[in-house]
Amino acid sequence: MTIQWIGFDADDTLWHNESLFLLTQERFTHLLAGYHPSEEIEKMLFETEMRNLKDFGYGIKGFVLSMIETAIQLTECRVSAAEIQEIINLGKSMMRAPVELLEQARETVETLSRSYPLLLITKGDLFDQESKIARSGLSRFFRGIEILSDKTPSVYQEVLKRYEIEPASFLMVGNSLKSDILPVLAIGAQAAYIEYSLCWEHEKVREPDLQGKPFHKLDSLADLLRLV
Amino acid sequence: MTIQWIGFDADDTLWHNESLFLLTQERFTHLLAGYHPSEEIEKMLFETEMRNLKDFGYGIKGFVLSMIETAIQLTECRVSAAEIQEIINLGKSMMRAPVELLEQARETVETLSRSYPLLLITKGDLFDQESKIARSGLSRFFRGIEILSDKTPSVYQEVLKRYEIEPASFLMVGNSLKSDILPVLAIGAQAAYIEYSLCWEHEKVREPDLQGKPFHKLDSLADLLRLV
Repeated sequence: MTIQWIGFDADDTLWHNESLFLLTQERFTHLLAGYHPSEEIEKMLFETEMRNLKDFGYGIKGFVLSMIETAIQLTECRVSAAEIQEIINLGKSMMRAPVELLEQARETVETLSRSYPLLLITKGDLFDQESKIARSGLSRFFRGIEILSDKTPSVYQEVLKRYEIEPASFLMVGNSLKSDILPVLAIGAQAAYIEYSLCWEHEKVREPDLQGKPFHKLDSLADLLRLV
Repeated sequence: MTIQWIGFDADDTLWHNESLFLLTQERFTHLLAGYHPSEEIEKMLFETEMRNLKDFGYGIKGFVLSMIETAIQLTECRVSAAEIQEIINLGKSMMRAPVELLEQARETVETLSRSYPLLLITKGDLFDQESKIARSGLSRFFRGIEILSDKTPSVYQEVLKRYEIEPASFLMVGNSLKSDILPVLAIGAQAAYIEYSLCWEHEKVREPDLQGKPFHKLDSLADLLRLV
C-alpha cells in the first residue's frame, strides 16, 4: 500500500540527544572519579535508571535523580552536598543545551511536508520534549505532535486511530528498533530505520528479534526522499 | 449557548493532589528541623520551585529536585547524603501514593458521560499524570485526555480546535482560577469553579482579576449536575 502519512521520531532521528546524555554521564563519572572507576559508576547508574523507570519514566529529570541516587550509593553516603548540587546543575545544562539538528533533518522534513501530512511522535518527558520541539524550529512542518510516555504497539494504534490513519498507509521513521520499528510493524504499519551512531543500552534489540522483520534500513535522512 | 462538551481538570478537581504535596512538604521541613524553622524552609522551597519552573516544569520530579536544592542551600552544604536520599524517597512515595477521588467524582463523571462527550484536561508531568489517570479508574468516561505542560488561553484554543469544539459550547470545570477558569473565559468558553480546601501559592489569583468575570461558582461536583 502506498504511504499516506509519515511519522518521525525526534531524539537521535531529527536532532542529537544520546550524545548529550553521554557527555553528561562523562562529567558525572569525572565528578565521582575520586571514589570509583568510571565503568563501575556507569554500570550502577544504568541499573539505578532501570530500577527507577517505573517511578520516574524517561527524561532528564529522572536521569538527574538517578545520578544523585547512584552517587549516594556508590560513595556510601560520602558524596558532599556541593557535589550533589553539581549533579543538579548538570541536569539544568542539559535542559538548556541547544537543539542540534541532524544533517539534512530540516530539508527532509520540509520537503516531505509538501507531499505528506507528517506526525512527530516522541517518547519522554512532556516539558523537556515540548521545549526541544519549540527550539528545533521544525514544529510548523508537522500536522500533529504526539509526546508519549512510552512507545508500545497499543500506543501507536491509539495515535493512528486519533488521526484516522490506516496502519498500512503509515510509515514511521526512527533510530530505535525497540521503540520506532518493532511496535510499528506489530500493528501492520511500515517502518524505516536510520541508525544513529550511539544507542542507549535500554533501547537495544537482540539480533534474533529482528529476523524476517520487513523494515527499510536507510543510511541517512536524505535516503528517505528516495524511498517514498 | 448550550453546553455540548465538558472539560474536567484532574488534580484537586477529581482527586486529591495538593494535600499530598503539603504532606510531603511537612515531612521535608521535619527532616530539616535541626537546621531551620519550618516557615523559612517553606519560603525558600517556594522560591526555589518558582526559579526552577523554567527548567523543570510542573510535577513531582521537579518538586523533588527543588527540595534537594533548598536543603543544600539552607544548610550551606551541611545536609548529608543520607538526608538527600530521604528526600528522593519522599518523591517516590508521592509517585506511588494511591489516587483518592474527591467525593462524588466518580458518580458525576459517569452520569455526565452519558449525556456529554467529556475531556480530561490536566497540567503537569506526563508520566505522573498518566499513571494517576490509570489508577483513578475514570479514564473510560472521557472521550479524550489532554496532558498539557501549561494551561494558557492559546493551549486551550488548540485543544478545542483539535476536537472541533465551538468555544461557546464548551464548559471547563476546575479548582484553579488561574489555570481552569480565567484562560477559558479568555477564549469565550464557559467555566465552573469548584474551590478546593487547599490552593498552591502559585495558582492563586488576586481578587481584582476576578471582577466581572462571568463564571459559575459551585460548592461541589454534585452541583454540576444541577448546572448543566
